[in-house]
Amino acid sequence: MNDTFLKACRGEAVPYTPIWIMRQAGRYLPEYHTVRDKFTFLELCKTPEAAAEVSMQPVDILGVDAAILFSDILVPMEKMGAPLDFLENRGPVFAHPIRDAAAVDRLVVPDPELELTYVLDTIRILRRELADKVPLIGFSGAPFTLATYLIEGGGSRTFWHTKQMMYQAPELYRKLLEKITACTINYLQAQAAAGAQALQIFDSWVGVLAPDDYAEFALPYVQWLVRALKETGVPVIYFANNGATLLEMAKTSGADVLGVDWRVSIDDAVARLGQDVSLQGNLDPVALLLPEDRLATRVERIIAQGRKARGHIFNLGHGIQPETPVEKAKLLVQLVHELSGKGRA
Amino acid sequence: MNDTFLKACRGEAVPYTPIWIMRQAGRYLPEYHTVRDKFTFLELCKTPEAAAEVSMQPVDILGVDAAILFSDILVPMEKMGAPLDFLENRGPVFAHPIRDAAAVDRLVVPDPELELTYVLDTIRILRRELADKVPLIGFSGAPFTLATYLIEGGGSRTFWHTKQMMYQAPELYRKLLEKITACTINYLQAQAAAGAQALQIFDSWVGVLAPDDYAEFALPYVQWLVRALKETGVPVIYFANNGATLLEMAKTSGADVLGVDWRVSIDDAVARLGQDVSLQGNLDPVALLLPEDRLATRVERIIAQGRKARGHIFNLGHGIQPETPVEKAKLLVQLVHELSGKGRA
Repeated sequence: MNDTFLKACRGEAVPYTPIWIMRQAGRYLPEYHTVRDKFTFLELCKTPEAAAEVSMQPVDILGVDAAILFSDILVPMEKMGAPLDFLENRGPVFAHPIRDAAAVDRLVVPDPELELTYVLDTIRILRRELADKVPLIGFSGAPFTLATYLIEGGGSRTFWHTKQMMYQAPELYRKLLEKITACTINYLQAQAAAGAQALQIFDSWVGVLAPDDYAEFALPYVQWLVRALKETGVPVIYFANNGATLLEMAKTSGADVLGVDWRVSIDDAVARLGQDVSLQGNLDPVALLLPEDRLATRVERIIAQGRKARGHIFNLGHGIQPETPVEKAKLLVQLVHELSGKGRA
Repeated sequence: MNDTFLKACRGEAVPYTPIWIMRQAGRYLPEYHTVRDKFTFLELCKTPEAAAEVSMQPVDILGVDAAILFSDILVPMEKMGAPLDFLENRGPVFAHPIRDAAAVDRLVVPDPELELTYVLDTIRILRRELADKVPLIGFSGAPFTLATYLIEGGGSRTFWHTKQMMYQAPELYRKLLEKITACTINYLQAQAAAGAQALQIFDSWVGVLAPDDYAEFALPYVQWLVRALKETGVPVIYFANNGATLLEMAKTSGADVLGVDWRVSIDDAVARLGQDVSLQGNLDPVALLLPEDRLATRVERIIAQGRKARGHIFNLGHGIQPETPVEKAKLLVQLVHELSGKGRA
């Protein structure tokens, strides 16, 4: 098996820098659209054969060093009892935002083996189809990020309602976060049991919190979650998006790998975090538009800086944009491999 | 005159911490709506008596230590030759995005005395009405932020087209930025000549740039702009929003004051920036929803950290939200004044 990704997660020596790409199973691939056009987005998440098919595409087309389950972080929220819809040009919508005690009380902690079977089946199919070619990453949202969707009723710019609950009803907020964390623990443990070989926790919106608020209202739930995942034995990646000022605290989550967005240089991250955590990232997704020579320079710089970390997994600093030409994604994978020594004697 | 704001800009001793609030002349004030309802947004910007009236409101209602001109950063872009509209629920729209050489060539550098008279008239009225009660702040967008609106044709999430021009047509990008910078220099110099006693440069979107891209594609134009403003003799505030990793570079702009958003603690900013620049910020705007005792604790912490800086002007870390109760804004001004020593013997 190509285990460069797993070794880099654990800080073990690797012959070259492994790479995967956030949202690599996605809209920039024509092959994705061929499958996606037959379903709504949620139907695709819930159809294991099709979800596995789109998860496999970037492994075959790009040659990345890890596959990631095709799903959405909000899928388990639906099973907590919050009806979910995805609207064209608007994204996810919870028609009944969770903002009071009655709504929080109504939420349940689902049994993933019974209620999220399609996710676990997707993982089982993928492990079979991958046949140990590359490892499979499972994932979830982080509790704070999941809570923002439930409280706001979808995406947000200001996170007004989330912060209102944090500030004015902290006990209710904590009760909600505890339920979400319990759900997420079960969900990720089940993913590992079904065959996920690493787990990534996406804290997509945590960058809207001041450091003190992060310490009080987000970090404790990530710590609890990561602790509960230790027994699975699989490496955990925690990505606190836009969290430049939160990195040191994010490290106390206990995750094996910290995702770093493109606003932070890897050099800076290594200086601040030291040698007991691996790093993942962090090319600006739009930098794929650079001409090849300038892209190569930038990739080489990130690889060189990543060598100073305990372990480094190359990735974009955020999900790949739908407008990205597939050739650029292929070029990136090739550049990372060549420039970091793959194929050298 | 209450010159605490200007003294803090220059790092001179002040009896208490001055405060003003970004977007203090705005939608959270019922009195603002009374005036605003008679105009479109752009008409209000272009009607000096009315723009001056809404600029005065927060001085009278909240008791802030500085007034800021009511306008919009995109007003001078219209006079560069880019027709501008503000659409309900969508914000600013340039119907003809600037993306090629012909479009850049067509842009002109307007003479603010002739073409932006309404802004300068607003300043003249405001200086008369303020009668030296508190100083008046003028402002503009920073060149990068202004360029994003022109290139994207409005707001953006990914800044795809802006970065595409940066990466694939850097000479064209530079030509555009030079024109915008020239326009902005004239515009801010004219504001100072008309009576603005400090100038704030809003770099609202610069936080989407990786540090290396900031150094290459945004910072040089801010440095040029600030240098050109030195001769006006008025203090310059540079606010690189969401720029936690850019602060040290932002300081090389030469601005007298750096705005800091709420993601960075003031303690951290002082440690990184030292004693030769003043700081402005940085309460999370949504933290105004905190109960009074917790709000006071947070305000007190920011004041205490700000005392370690050369000078500190209290502000929110971003514009005040329209949903904010006016009473909370009044309370903030009162807390900052009381907790920092105003009225003490």
